[in-house]
Amino acid sequence: MKRDIVIIGGGPAGMITAVTARGSYPDKKVTFIRREDKVLVPCGIPYIFHTLGSVQKNIAPDKPFIDNNIEIIVDTVINVDTKNKTLKLNSNEEIEYEKLVFATGSEPYMPTWLKGHELENVFVIKKNHEYLEEVKKKTDAMQKIMVVGAGFIGVEVAEELNKNGKEIYLVEKMDSIIGKAFDSEFVDDIHQSLVASGMNIITGKGVQEINGNGKVSSVTLEDGQKIEIDAVVLAMGYRPNIELAEKTGLFIGKNKNIWVDEYMRTSERDVFAVGDCAERMHFITRRPSNTMLASTATSEARVAGSNLYSLSTLKSFNGTIAIFSTKVGDILIGSAGITVSEAKDEGMHIVDATFAGSDRHPANLPGAGTQKVKLITSKNTGVIIGAQILGGESSSELINVLGYIIQNRMRVDEVFVSQIGTHPLTTAAPTTYPIVKAAEMILKKMKCPKFED
Amino acid sequence: MKRDIVIIGGGPAGMITAVTARGSYPDKKVTFIRREDKVLVPCGIPYIFHTLGSVQKNIAPDKPFIDNNIEIIVDTVINVDTKNKTLKLNSNEEIEYEKLVFATGSEPYMPTWLKGHELENVFVIKKNHEYLEEVKKKTDAMQKIMVVGAGFIGVEVAEELNKNGKEIYLVEKMDSIIGKAFDSEFVDDIHQSLVASGMNIITGKGVQEINGNGKVSSVTLEDGQKIEIDAVVLAMGYRPNIELAEKTGLFIGKNKNIWVDEYMRTSERDVFAVGDCAERMHFITRRPSNTMLASTATSEARVAGSNLYSLSTLKSFNGTIAIFSTKVGDILIGSAGITVSEAKDEGMHIVDATFAGSDRHPANLPGAGTQKVKLITSKNTGVIIGAQILGGESSSELINVLGYIIQNRMRVDEVFVSQIGTHPLTTAAPTTYPIVKAAEMILKKMKCPKFED
Repeated sequence: MKRDIVIIGGGPAGMITAVTARGSYPDKKVTFIRREDKVLVPCGIPYIFHTLGSVQKNIAPDKPFIDNNIEIIVDTVINVDTKNKTLKLNSNEEIEYEKLVFATGSEPYMPTWLKGHELENVFVIKKNHEYLEEVKKKTDAMQKIMVVGAGFIGVEVAEELNKNGKEIYLVEKMDSIIGKAFDSEFVDDIHQSLVASGMNIITGKGVQEINGNGKVSSVTLEDGQKIEIDAVVLAMGYRPNIELAEKTGLFIGKNKNIWVDEYMRTSERDVFAVGDCAERMHFITRRPSNTMLASTATSEARVAGSNLYSLSTLKSFNGTIAIFSTKVGDILIGSAGITVSEAKDEGMHIVDATFAGSDRHPANLPGAGTQKVKLITSKNTGVIIGAQILGGESSSELINVLGYIIQNRMRVDEVFVSQIGTHPLTTAAPTTYPIVKAAEMILKKMKCPKFED
Repeated sequence: MKRDIVIIGGGPAGMITAVTARGSYPDKKVTFIRREDKVLVPCGIPYIFHTLGSVQKNIAPDKPFIDNNIEIIVDTVINVDTKNKTLKLNSNEEIEYEKLVFATGSEPYMPTWLKGHELENVFVIKKNHEYLEEVKKKTDAMQKIMVVGAGFIGVEVAEELNKNGKEIYLVEKMDSIIGKAFDSEFVDDIHQSLVASGMNIITGKGVQEINGNGKVSSVTLEDGQKIEIDAVVLAMGYRPNIELAEKTGLFIGKNKNIWVDEYMRTSERDVFAVGDCAERMHFITRRPSNTMLASTATSEARVAGSNLYSLSTLKSFNGTIAIFSTKVGDILIGSAGITVSEAKDEGMHIVDATFAGSDRHPANLPGAGTQKVKLITSKNTGVIIGAQILGGESSSELINVLGYIIQNRMRVDEVFVSQIGTHPLTTAAPTTYPIVKAAEMILKKMKCPKFED
């Protein structure tokens, strides 16, 4: 049967492409095809283990699509013919399309080189509700659990299992947890807070082998240390799901994502790709980036959904700023742009500064806590290229303040004289607002070379 | 005695000029002269009545100035001679300056035309700690208090007195409370929350007369209604303190502020003015604005402090975006740029939209509440010219996200495809982030003229 706009994939990238296409082209028939009968809120997944308490509470509603006259087909696409502009479903149905969008997402990385990865009770964080129901049921009945990989998913899952009363070992090969998005000194508070909550954290050390007879009994670390364990959760990142794209003959980029241009068009006419399966540049370094974030995916989806039939020249995607935040205990941290370590890897000349102050004013108001902002500036131009924040609940949107500073390529001198809305009960003081103070510190360093890094 | 940089006034504008000048000119002697021995955190003043509980807890520390080698003189300037670049203090001391900055602030408006304004127990919210100690002591012993004027200072003071157990009458001549910064439909939640907390709110009606023999006994409203009352707090706005500037011969602008250019220079060579006493343009309307906010004042102070001896061409002040937020009960509201009513007054063609959604995702996470964003766009250019927000504590920095959107003159299509960092526990979903959704609604309205306002 003929449809107009067909989207493969039901995650955030697929959803937002559908909603945007519906808004952009009110007369077109919009359909998305997904494998799952129920779709999970992806960033909510770690919270099924304790805060939400069940997988069912983390299901994204279909109502917005039904209300918007967007068709949902639950099936698997087994073949795409870009010449005849048709695709074939597992049910054998053939669908004709005018415009096709790949939003096939990503799958958790399974380290097949790791001995024991195939044992029972070795889990990954799949975005599949039946699989996760099983993981939840099984881990509920266990005591000692190891989480391998302390990126933000690993940390969030470990913290939730810990809150759920489990004995947790969080193992990370890098020197610090959440080490890609933050300069290490910035995650010390998170690390300490997790240790204080009773979690065992092992950094700078990988897993050598998972041991067990049929099912997991222990894990041997790289240095020979053996830890008895009931289950292992592998949180070692995700890989783009490009199987169908490869079979379709779409050009695959250097980092094994579907190649796209800035309007999200693939190598084939009338075929687009968005989200984790698509290639993206980094906003600052302009290299292909492996960042997988809903913020990036939904931006790309809005670009694709607005440009399917004709270019609306102003809306294109200029690369991921890798913006994200997470909350561990009562501490919220966020990052956008690049870190000092990434900047140094690129050989960039930078000036950075960190300011910490109270998130209320005066600081003796009830509920006051610390708010910390790090700004990273290109030395040649003064443009802000990265930022990190730490704070309490009132800092929830602070990383987005910085996100717009970065996306607008503001210079540090512009930020220094910018206007900030403040209020005693909810923010830092106008006299010591941390973004402005960090900008001031950078300006001073730029003036007096002795302060520079 | 000779000084280099002399600042008159010890409020936020004076403080930040001093700190910025110190950073910009490390070899200069920086001095500020203020009338008060102790300086209040101005935006914290309403909170002395209950949340802070005392005036003393709202004193801004002098340590940052002492540590930065900034001289503080507590005295009153009685005369400035711009020809000889000297000024005279009440103590008779004469000070020579190289650069002089007026940061003389504002005084509460006293309606001398109002019968009874001179009675005992008629108060204003002066930025003076001794005066406020007295107001606090007296109101603590009273029961029925009327607050006249429901701008944000009036609302905050009324709420605090109400929390402190007083019977409160809040009287506002305009049709809604906080009516200048918000479109009226946006403050309904605040209004209802205040009424639910037991406050009596009377809008659309002014005060006719304050009655009493020596001290206040009742107030007669414009429609003849008489309310028995122990005290009246007049919160009818502030007026720039320009007495000394007039005496000095500085040119006074159309709105009775000290005229300045975009580097904050007055009509006299080597004399600057910043903060509430200085004239400022509105960022959008380009008219002189009566906005008095610490956010604006501190920006101006950073501009002045960076440009005292030579222009650093990139740092100038482009007009106030009138950005501010306040919290009433558990509800936080914020505004930046212009409102729909202001835009209509200017005859601007606009398109606006409001989106309300959950501030967590999924919405059934504990602690989830509503977050609401209104965007106002110029119809000709798509540039965002105003925004209003409402939410809980996690929305504290949301108005600053919008502040940077406005200061960068972003278009609605750019905002629509911009990247936002989200997290289940702390923000709206990436698929329904309220700023992006409001932008989407505006784009739809722009496309289909039938939706336009």
